[in-house]
Amino acid sequence: MRTIDWDDTKNCIIFVDQTKLPLARHIIECADVNTLAEAIGTLSIRGAPALGVAGAFGIALAAQTSKAKSPIDLVQELEGAAEVLRNTRPTAINLSWGIDRVLRKAKTGHSITQVKELALEEAKAIADDDVEICKKIGANGAKLLEDGDVVLTHCNAGRMACVDWGTALGVVRSAIEENKRIKVIATETRPLNQGSRITAWELLQDNIPVTLITDSMAGHVIKSGMVDKILVGADRIVEEAVFNKIGTYTLSVIAKEHKIPFYVAAPMSTFDFEKHAQDIEIEERGPQELKYFGDMQIAPLDAKAYNPAFDATPMDNVTAIITEKGVFYPPLSFEELKGLE
Amino acid sequence: MRTIDWDDTKNCIIFVDQTKLPLARHIIECADVNTLAEAIGTLSIRGAPALGVAGAFGIALAAQTSKAKSPIDLVQELEGAAEVLRNTRPTAINLSWGIDRVLRKAKTGHSITQVKELALEEAKAIADDDVEICKKIGANGAKLLEDGDVVLTHCNAGRMACVDWGTALGVVRSAIEENKRIKVIATETRPLNQGSRITAWELLQDNIPVTLITDSMAGHVIKSGMVDKILVGADRIVEEAVFNKIGTYTLSVIAKEHKIPFYVAAPMSTFDFEKHAQDIEIEERGPQELKYFGDMQIAPLDAKAYNPAFDATPMDNVTAIITEKGVFYPPLSFEELKGLE
Repeated sequence: MRTIDWDDTKNCIIFVDQTKLPLARHIIECADVNTLAEAIGTLSIRGAPALGVAGAFGIALAAQTSKAKSPIDLVQELEGAAEVLRNTRPTAINLSWGIDRVLRKAKTGHSITQVKELALEEAKAIADDDVEICKKIGANGAKLLEDGDVVLTHCNAGRMACVDWGTALGVVRSAIEENKRIKVIATETRPLNQGSRITAWELLQDNIPVTLITDSMAGHVIKSGMVDKILVGADRIVEEAVFNKIGTYTLSVIAKEHKIPFYVAAPMSTFDFEKHAQDIEIEERGPQELKYFGDMQIAPLDAKAYNPAFDATPMDNVTAIITEKGVFYPPLSFEELKGLE
Repeated sequence: MRTIDWDDTKNCIIFVDQTKLPLARHIIECADVNTLAEAIGTLSIRGAPALGVAGAFGIALAAQTSKAKSPIDLVQELEGAAEVLRNTRPTAINLSWGIDRVLRKAKTGHSITQVKELALEEAKAIADDDVEICKKIGANGAKLLEDGDVVLTHCNAGRMACVDWGTALGVVRSAIEENKRIKVIATETRPLNQGSRITAWELLQDNIPVTLITDSMAGHVIKSGMVDKILVGADRIVEEAVFNKIGTYTLSVIAKEHKIPFYVAAPMSTFDFEKHAQDIEIEERGPQELKYFGDMQIAPLDAKAYNPAFDATPMDNVTAIITEKGVFYPPLSFEELKGLE
């Protein structure tokens, strides 16, 4: 099953609840936009490409469930739903990208039925595209991996962050499909452990060798010569920097120190051609994520905790960006990239 | 109460069980060496200086509880106890240092009673010395901190890692005693969270402002200009490197990248004048520490996990080492330092 999909029989979104992994693979049926917004906020759905698809299906869902009496009222409702969804997570650009693409298409409809149909068709097309795009990212990135490589990855930029296949882990999968033997070292990725809970789980499902480490071990592991390449995803790429899961910047500095290639794999929809690094809001999540492991308290409750969910890796620290349109080596020409979109 | 002490009434070691912090402050009475060895192995007692004192009291305990009929038999028993204790944790040199110092003194005894008395006296002296030494480290290090500084620390090199006061956090305490306003950023320190469980707790007890971050956030936080100095402890210092909690090396690379001073605070007993970096065993702990949070499973149980407990920070990345004998700036003259011991 895809990580996120549309169920035609029940006329709703279905997705894997990623907060329950690896212990359970719960499938959620979601038939209203507020529930979807909550699922995005709690990271039941996560990963930049998957968020793009969630935004797209969210607008389609709002259209399907609407009781609007005119196309204008319906589009106004969709704009409201877009606002609700957009506000859930500010850093990943793909969420807004998916929402906007469906909105744009829906607005070309002339009747209520047509708006509803166009919205759903476009959302489904985005989901299908995502799989194709990941396969192309995989094929482009696989050329950079050699037989025997050990790849260190952070967070989860795999099947579970997309509709299928994955971006960073898609590159690993494609290389393995080409009969290259690739091993993965996965950082656990505090505070929500997407590395240990999701990356390790999805790689084991495919029998891809994976070794877990804590985030803090990356320096030691790289210095010890255990890593050939670093490969991560991205939540937003601007001209000066790659925004990705907190901890990515730290890895990029270690990669530079030890002259290890640092690759970012992401769809073209991750590029932000409008804004600059200083304009990007880094989502700050609640301090409780550092004070509890599940139900277990691990810090004094009156301690302060700072919990930014992303950081910015300057383009100088990036060896290359792997997309469905090719592999790009900084310094990037954003004018040229924009033309490819 | 001291973190670890000798109870004259009950003729046993008493210590705070650090695995239960911050939820409970359990005091353990320990009357036999095997229980002590287990407590060291599970990190109920931890922190290089505290381990030195634990080793010392361990030999004293073996002496007090011995039924040996001659001084030679007694000393042989103490050598056996030393072997048991020494094997619990290989990286921190202080453990062996404390054991050896008591053994050496005990061996000068001419009767069973004298051996027992000398062992206990020496162990108590080591514990008392530790407090004095930490105060001197604090006074020497405080000169390096300025009013308003934000200090980032890793793991726990505080009161709970020593008998009292602390090494890295002792420097913070001494600076605050001199009316400097110092704030601390504590990394949670995976996988056993000594930063969130112990450092945050002990600083809040003293009303020292502390903010928790995950280990992976250090790069972002330092790049954002939120940190003035990094201050950590040490488990063993050789001519080429400082061995300390896993993650220290990563922090040193980021400090270098951002030209932030990187200070190590440790007693002279942490220096290893015999061995070189390549000879030091880095303790590898069990993979389950990365697969569970307490009782909660967070990774597939069939995933591999690599769990080194320490790493080596090359002396090039160290700005200065703060000891009770003064502040030393690399490159260090180990000949000169040996003379100071």
